[in-house]
Amino acid sequence: MTSAPTIQPKFLPNRNELGIVAVGFSGGQPKAGVDAAPMALIENGLIKQLQEDLEFNVSYDGQVHAYSEMIPSSDPDYRGMKKPKFVSAVTQKVSTQVYNYAKDGKLVLTLGGDHSIAIGTVSGTAKAVRERLGKDIAVIWVDAHADINTPETSDSGNIHGMPVSFLTGLATEEREDVFGWLGDEHRISATKLVYIGLRDIDKGEKKILREQGIKAFSMHDIDRHGIGKVMDMALGWIGRDTPIHLSFDVDALDPMWAPSTGTPVRGGLTLREGDFIAECVAETGSLIALDLVEVNPSLDAEGAGDTVRAGVSIVRCALGDTLL
Amino acid sequence: MTSAPTIQPKFLPNRNELGIVAVGFSGGQPKAGVDAAPMALIENGLIKQLQEDLEFNVSYDGQVHAYSEMIPSSDPDYRGMKKPKFVSAVTQKVSTQVYNYAKDGKLVLTLGGDHSIAIGTVSGTAKAVRERLGKDIAVIWVDAHADINTPETSDSGNIHGMPVSFLTGLATEEREDVFGWLGDEHRISATKLVYIGLRDIDKGEKKILREQGIKAFSMHDIDRHGIGKVMDMALGWIGRDTPIHLSFDVDALDPMWAPSTGTPVRGGLTLREGDFIAECVAETGSLIALDLVEVNPSLDAEGAGDTVRAGVSIVRCALGDTLL
Amino acid sequence: MTSAPTIQPKFLPNRNELGIVAVGFSGGQPKAGVDAAPMALIENGLIKQLQEDLEFNVSYDGQVHAYSEMIPSSDPDYRGMKKPKFVSAVTQKVSTQVYNYAKDGKLVLTLGGDHSIAIGTVSGTAKAVRERLGKDIAVIWVDAHADINTPETSDSGNIHGMPVSFLTGLATEEREDVFGWLGDEHRISATKLVYIGLRDIDKGEKKILREQGIKAFSMHDIDRHGIGKVMDMALGWIGRDTPIHLSFDVDALDPMWAPSTGTPVRGGLTLREGDFIAECVAETGSLIALDLVEVNPSLDAEGAGDTVRAGVSIVRCALGDTLL
Ligand SMILES: [Mn+2]
Ligand SMILES: [Mn+2]
Ligand SMILES: [Mn+2]
Ligand SMILES: [Mn+2]
Ligand SMILES: [Mn+2]
Ligand SMILES: [Mn+2]
Repeated sequence: MTSAPTIQPKFLPNRNELGIVAVGFSGGQPKAGVDAAPMALIENGLIKQLQEDLEFNVSYDGQVHAYSEMIPSSDPDYRGMKKPKFVSAVTQKVSTQVYNYAKDGKLVLTLGGDHSIAIGTVSGTAKAVRERLGKDIAVIWVDAHADINTPETSDSGNIHGMPVSFLTGLATEEREDVFGWLGDEHRISATKLVYIGLRDIDKGEKKILREQGIKAFSMHDIDRHGIGKVMDMALGWIGRDTPIHLSFDVDALDPMWAPSTGTPVRGGLTLREGDFIAECVAETGSLIALDLVEVNPSLDAEGAGDTVRAGVSIVRCALGDTLL
Repeated sequence: MTSAPTIQPKFLPNRNELGIVAVGFSGGQPKAGVDAAPMALIENGLIKQLQEDLEFNVSYDGQVHAYSEMIPSSDPDYRGMKKPKFVSAVTQKVSTQVYNYAKDGKLVLTLGGDHSIAIGTVSGTAKAVRERLGKDIAVIWVDAHADINTPETSDSGNIHGMPVSFLTGLATEEREDVFGWLGDEHRISATKLVYIGLRDIDKGEKKILREQGIKAFSMHDIDRHGIGKVMDMALGWIGRDTPIHLSFDVDALDPMWAPSTGTPVRGGLTLREGDFIAECVAETGSLIALDLVEVNPSLDAEGAGDTVRAGVSIVRCALGDTLL
Repeated sequence: MTSAPTIQPKFLPNRNELGIVAVGFSGGQPKAGVDAAPMALIENGLIKQLQEDLEFNVSYDGQVHAYSEMIPSSDPDYRGMKKPKFVSAVTQKVSTQVYNYAKDGKLVLTLGGDHSIAIGTVSGTAKAVRERLGKDIAVIWVDAHADINTPETSDSGNIHGMPVSFLTGLATEEREDVFGWLGDEHRISATKLVYIGLRDIDKGEKKILREQGIKAFSMHDIDRHGIGKVMDMALGWIGRDTPIHLSFDVDALDPMWAPSTGTPVRGGLTLREGDFIAECVAETGSLIALDLVEVNPSLDAEGAGDTVRAGVSIVRCALGDTLL
């Protein structure tokens, strides 16, 4: 049903070198179970399909990392953030894992885990691509949520609602053990960030998006223009000469297709639209990394299978699978 | 998640004065339960959200009106219409309730009830806006059905299938107690009427729509052009200088999103399209009144919650809630 | 709710002469039950509606043909094909049944049965239209699958995955009793074939589609352009002067709307898109035949009713039913 992708990558030396990081981490939010997503995706055949159907040469250490050895003995709230030291330590580790693949010119696939882990994945590729190509990366963030709260604007203190803030430098922190390890080499510009699928934004976030002039396509925009036009605009904003890191939160999909996730929001993308976004990014030849996050197989017994399969489908499409 | 709307209304003196009429009336059709919709919507937090999130100053008498004191001792069919005197009396009363808010320049939200009550709501705003601004209003009727049968073309005799006919003057009646109270000041022009979402039209209605040259966007048109283009065309037809009364029948939505309604029809609007229509009307700044009708929480035990939430969502969007 | 169609057919002498062939055949694939579809469609009121609502003068022999008298005493696999002699004999018979209506200038509706029967239906109309009008027909094949495997590229050997290959002459066979009966008069040109809805194509099929330059609109194309634009392109490719045979596999629809079919594939057409395709073909006035296949009421107890109703809806729309 599939043939190996034929698109030549612009920013990778080889088409078929893929590094996989499996992050079984749920510390950026309160619900257990999102840590089980990487194994569910793998048991659904994901890695095998990437090897056999899409002909990737996969580098993978064979482990779903739980990082339990990193749990601090004491981890009090700090600036309202919950588990600040644990999330900081894990994302710093993920950053290194991703960096190690990316510096060798490998395409990197990270299987989450909650969305806080993107502090690690994006910082890892941003640093590696700067070193390897002297270029800033762009990030396409597909999500029902903007995840751009600062510790101060967040109501919940859950760090999976803050990664974009730390990555763009809107939030900073001196303490080395609470994201102080993030340096300029790890950060991205808010002008190189594009959101797709937004529909549940906090008041403080709306203000940030407006003030920073961040490019965001809400569900309203998708209804107005159609997903085809929205992708033209999103990719046009980024331009053809910029490496792309795609960070895909499965809650961008409507709960009808992906119910088993921590913060589902009605009125989301259809599975077709989700696949289409991934296919369009694949077609650019600019993809250098992909995150798939927030699949939580334990939340909706009946819908877990659909959600996992939706995740597999998104990954396949982003990595070059095509219908024709 | 929401901020107060920023759009300046064109035809209202203040942005935040909202009058609410709760009409627990089911006499325009045969199924009990639609009378319970206003309470279900309010218990779902609707009024509270309008006050707190959208910062409306709400005028509301605190009652869901059942109008049971108006039930006539005898109410035989007349020209095929069922309960003609009761529906006439109730809609006349609703007309006054809506008029009283509208003449003061308040935005009016009416929570139905079956769609026969629009005889009251539209006549009330038409009269008030004529007096206050010397202008004719336009009506956007979002519905699976055209509700434009005359008593003579109707097979069922249910008056919720006839409101547009009485409002446009296609149907008239001398008897004061059977809609004879409707005067020229209450009526709207068929040229200022726009339908969206039609998909189940009676033969007689098709003939009326064609003969009167009424602007109608069926589901076929929405599939052909996309909802974005359809709203451009619908609002372009009305023009920027005309106050808009939006009458939203929840059965315009597909039963997948709004199953708990009296006459569901497959192949309808997605929830996203419904919200989008409401958002586009809000953006015009021309909205002067909104009806939400035909939510019937008793018809689909499993789907009642979704249907009520869909109704709340439509109202929020029409009254200025935005995603970004 | 419906009025008789008003479109004047371009390639038929009368608007309202319809021949119906009911093919209770499942031999082109392994799952029992698809043979029960014609009766399910008829019991759902299909023929009655075509007569009463759409005012067709229906010619129908009153039988769902099972063709069990044609089962060969021995029918070993041949070139990998399963039941080659039985499928060949049945499709040859269907070809004659369809031809007999089509040569008289009747519109022909065939109710399948699995999609192998299109070897019969398309060959029958191709021959009749050549004789009657001296014209080649075009075929619009609405399907999740391309059904264009040759016996050699097929993994399964199920002939319902091969009809297009035999019809276009990509696959040929000398043996009279294994599709050797197909002559040039029965065949269509690959350049007059248009696919809509594809999303599950075998490797060998992808190669064939590319090499033959066959016009195909996948789900990706529908997401990119919208179904309105896709139909403009599909019908533009065929042109206004070519008779159209529409072969509609119900698995083109998403399983959300048509779950009860032998090879469902996620990410398909909505019911609205399916109806829209049929409506657009009807509007051309070029339709000369319609197949509805692969409804299998026995596969999904809960979804069988929806699937049958979806089939009825597609047929009604293709035969001229309109919303307005
Ligand atoms: Mn997220
Ligand atoms: Mn999210
Ligand atoms: Mn209505
Ligand atoms: Mn209705
Ligand atoms: Mn198929
Ligand atoms: Mn097929």
